[in-house]
Amino acid sequence: MRPNARYSPVTSKIVDRLKAIVGERFVIHGDPEKLEPFSHDEIPDLAYAHAPEAVVRPNTTQQIAEIMKLANREMIPVTPRGAGSGLSGGAVPIHGGIVVLMDRMNHILEVDRENMMVVVEPGVVTNDINAAVRAEGLFYAGYPMSLETCYIGGNVAENAGGGKAVKYGVTGRYVVGLEVVTPTGEIIQLGGKLLKDVTGYDLISLMVGSEGTLGIFTKITLRLLPLPKASADLLCLFSSAADAIAAVPKIAIAGGAVPTSIEFMDSTSVRKSCEYLNESLPYHEAGAMLLITVDGPESEQVERQYEAIGEQCLRSGAIEVYVADNATTSERIWRVRRNIPEAFSVISTHQSNDDLVVPPANILQMVAGMEKLAQKHGVSIPAYGHAGDGNLHTRIVKAPDMTLEQWHGLLPKVLTELYELTARLGGKISGEHGIGHKRKKYMPMFVSPAALEMMRAIKRGLDPNNILNPGKIFDV
Amino acid sequence: MRPNARYSPVTSKIVDRLKAIVGERFVIHGDPEKLEPFSHDEIPDLAYAHAPEAVVRPNTTQQIAEIMKLANREMIPVTPRGAGSGLSGGAVPIHGGIVVLMDRMNHILEVDRENMMVVVEPGVVTNDINAAVRAEGLFYAGYPMSLETCYIGGNVAENAGGGKAVKYGVTGRYVVGLEVVTPTGEIIQLGGKLLKDVTGYDLISLMVGSEGTLGIFTKITLRLLPLPKASADLLCLFSSAADAIAAVPKIAIAGGAVPTSIEFMDSTSVRKSCEYLNESLPYHEAGAMLLITVDGPESEQVERQYEAIGEQCLRSGAIEVYVADNATTSERIWRVRRNIPEAFSVISTHQSNDDLVVPPANILQMVAGMEKLAQKHGVSIPAYGHAGDGNLHTRIVKAPDMTLEQWHGLLPKVLTELYELTARLGGKISGEHGIGHKRKKYMPMFVSPAALEMMRAIKRGLDPNNILNPGKIFDV
Repeated sequence: MRPNARYSPVTSKIVDRLKAIVGERFVIHGDPEKLEPFSHDEIPDLAYAHAPEAVVRPNTTQQIAEIMKLANREMIPVTPRGAGSGLSGGAVPIHGGIVVLMDRMNHILEVDRENMMVVVEPGVVTNDINAAVRAEGLFYAGYPMSLETCYIGGNVAENAGGGKAVKYGVTGRYVVGLEVVTPTGEIIQLGGKLLKDVTGYDLISLMVGSEGTLGIFTKITLRLLPLPKASADLLCLFSSAADAIAAVPKIAIAGGAVPTSIEFMDSTSVRKSCEYLNESLPYHEAGAMLLITVDGPESEQVERQYEAIGEQCLRSGAIEVYVADNATTSERIWRVRRNIPEAFSVISTHQSNDDLVVPPANILQMVAGMEKLAQKHGVSIPAYGHAGDGNLHTRIVKAPDMTLEQWHGLLPKVLTELYELTARLGGKISGEHGIGHKRKKYMPMFVSPAALEMMRAIKRGLDPNNILNPGKIFDV
Repeated sequence: MRPNARYSPVTSKIVDRLKAIVGERFVIHGDPEKLEPFSHDEIPDLAYAHAPEAVVRPNTTQQIAEIMKLANREMIPVTPRGAGSGLSGGAVPIHGGIVVLMDRMNHILEVDRENMMVVVEPGVVTNDINAAVRAEGLFYAGYPMSLETCYIGGNVAENAGGGKAVKYGVTGRYVVGLEVVTPTGEIIQLGGKLLKDVTGYDLISLMVGSEGTLGIFTKITLRLLPLPKASADLLCLFSSAADAIAAVPKIAIAGGAVPTSIEFMDSTSVRKSCEYLNESLPYHEAGAMLLITVDGPESEQVERQYEAIGEQCLRSGAIEVYVADNATTSERIWRVRRNIPEAFSVISTHQSNDDLVVPPANILQMVAGMEKLAQKHGVSIPAYGHAGDGNLHTRIVKAPDMTLEQWHGLLPKVLTELYELTARLGGKISGEHGIGHKRKKYMPMFVSPAALEMMRAIKRGLDPNNILNPGKIFDV
């Protein structure tokens, strides 16, 4: 690959054309301070940052199509960006060029009660969808931890998972229709208000999780579900991470149904988040916790399900089980869970955020292996995440007494060993955060050359000039 | 396109090589009578049939890879085939060449209770999966109407839906891992025993529903769910199809949760199937029926859910509501539903089977429009299918007093008008049966040129010689 060589700079002539497309006020250019916020996402380490040459803020599909046509003619890379809450560098314009910011396309276009669907623009904050549909007795099942700030368009681009994926699946399950601007600037409609559709290849699923490399979504139709009438959380305290994790595979069968959430937090993660929020949870001497949510159409059934699960946890060695069956307590606990990444991020920029996923039955070995690795290399590797899915988040954090040189020498070794462990356990490098450019050099450990070549063939076929978000997931 | 011109015939030299790969006993060649069963699927109209030159029955992934490499070297088209229960001609070798029959790869390789997954070969009969996992308290949620004969490999290739898709979704939701022989003969592993995975493009979803044009599946890992402990069916009789269909959108919200099934059968469909099976259902003067299934972890909750739904149906004009809460009665009713296609097929080969899907709230207009079309053209268009999904199956049947000439002149007109109606209602041409070659000429009515070109680009990228199941879905 010849980095950058193939691309042209964003000249003032191009800037004028961009202004003609989206309006003068909606182009940011020439001011490094104003461009800086668009140089990174939520990865703490600034080594992954790179500033764009221009940021444009379109508010129609047609404008985006024109931008893509211009970019193809002039050979300028385009990187779409939502709220910038990503954790893999997906929205970082590593070859410069134009960032297309979706913040003005933030309208909920239609709540369709009869079809139980909602049509939204990509810049809608995920949480706002539920605020809009709740009154109709409906709910959107996506629940990424950043739901108070992230955009639904980014959720679709990354195929975001989150806290409710055990029962409800990930974002892709709910995307039934997409309006897409293709890498060459065509506008296409995929799917519709349809619950099933096999009219040709499943291009929607190909777009979902493509990390902004195959298309820019301009309209999203999501399937909704009836709002569960009852819900409760269990906070189960265990003396060790191993005990907590060992309980996980038994929970679904004990409860007779898949619970909504099975979240894992080790003691470091809970403590850091509580400190950050000035909150207190009853974590006492607990080495780890499971946060388990159950929901359903009626409270009696929910109660029986969580009681069966609570008993199973006690049989599996839980020290204590707390029940939160009201919204306030529930929100307090979930707030602690949601803020773990932020709590770690503020400590130091010298850390690596990871998103490993293994077969659910193997997370016990995964956690044990991570503890060994931490000891071996003298770093802290706290873990938290979606244990019910086998999806563990972790932060490898620089020890305070380490020099930066030591840290930069050590991190690649720890990461490689961590990923080798993941591969041995039948796992993959990302469950929901994506590859972006943070993880792309490790792709060959998890995806065979023939499969990687398939991905490249698709990218080349859809984006012949390699204009849309180049350098993400793999190099062409 | 130059049909056939690009392909070479299966010479006796090629047959010898195929015999060397799979063994002499497992190659069928040179005997038109023995090749005939592989010339068609379950489409009644033999106009869609075409015989292969050879049928091979491999039993290892390696053999299939060798067959694909040979076919690429010699430019011979290869069509994979499962049980032949398809309804779009997907397994029909329209350019001749080699049919790869999956019947010997019929082993359930592993039931993994801890991960709640099962690993199977593609030739396993779908129903056998549940027979194998039930003892572990688990179940596979796929329920195509042909489940007693169809193969799971075909279900994956077509992204089969079926009777439980309202609650449980279609086949694709459960496919977490695939071993695939690519069109060029490489063996790749996609996914794994993972509940989420965004390590690169979602090639599994691209393979699912690709109708055997992008890869041959040789090993399939499916997610299982805890076996619901309680289940019941409601048979709701309405005086007209319109009344029955109008009740559908209210059912999920009335019951407080999405039911397992909402099946629709008009009076003609029920009568024909009952005659075929020598069965009697209480259809009396009913113009149409809804068959609604509810399941869950406990009987009290299931009972309350079906009572709420039954009351809603009565409020929506149901004449009568019968409850089937035991396995025998349940199976009697479902058998009638499952056998509708077969009951129609035996009447005459002069009929067209269709698989329309519209937004759920529009099926009332769809059914009304179909009735008008039937009157206008003097044909019968009985309807049945997955009303809860907006997925209606229909058969356009030649009237007995029509000449064959009249019929062949009329059918394309009726089909075009039916599809135009579908498009106007925001629908698509296939919900679960696929496009195959039966529907490919109608693709441009439902898929824009740019989206179709995307599909072609993917096919060209993955199958540069157009060897694997050419001429299906679209022409390259």
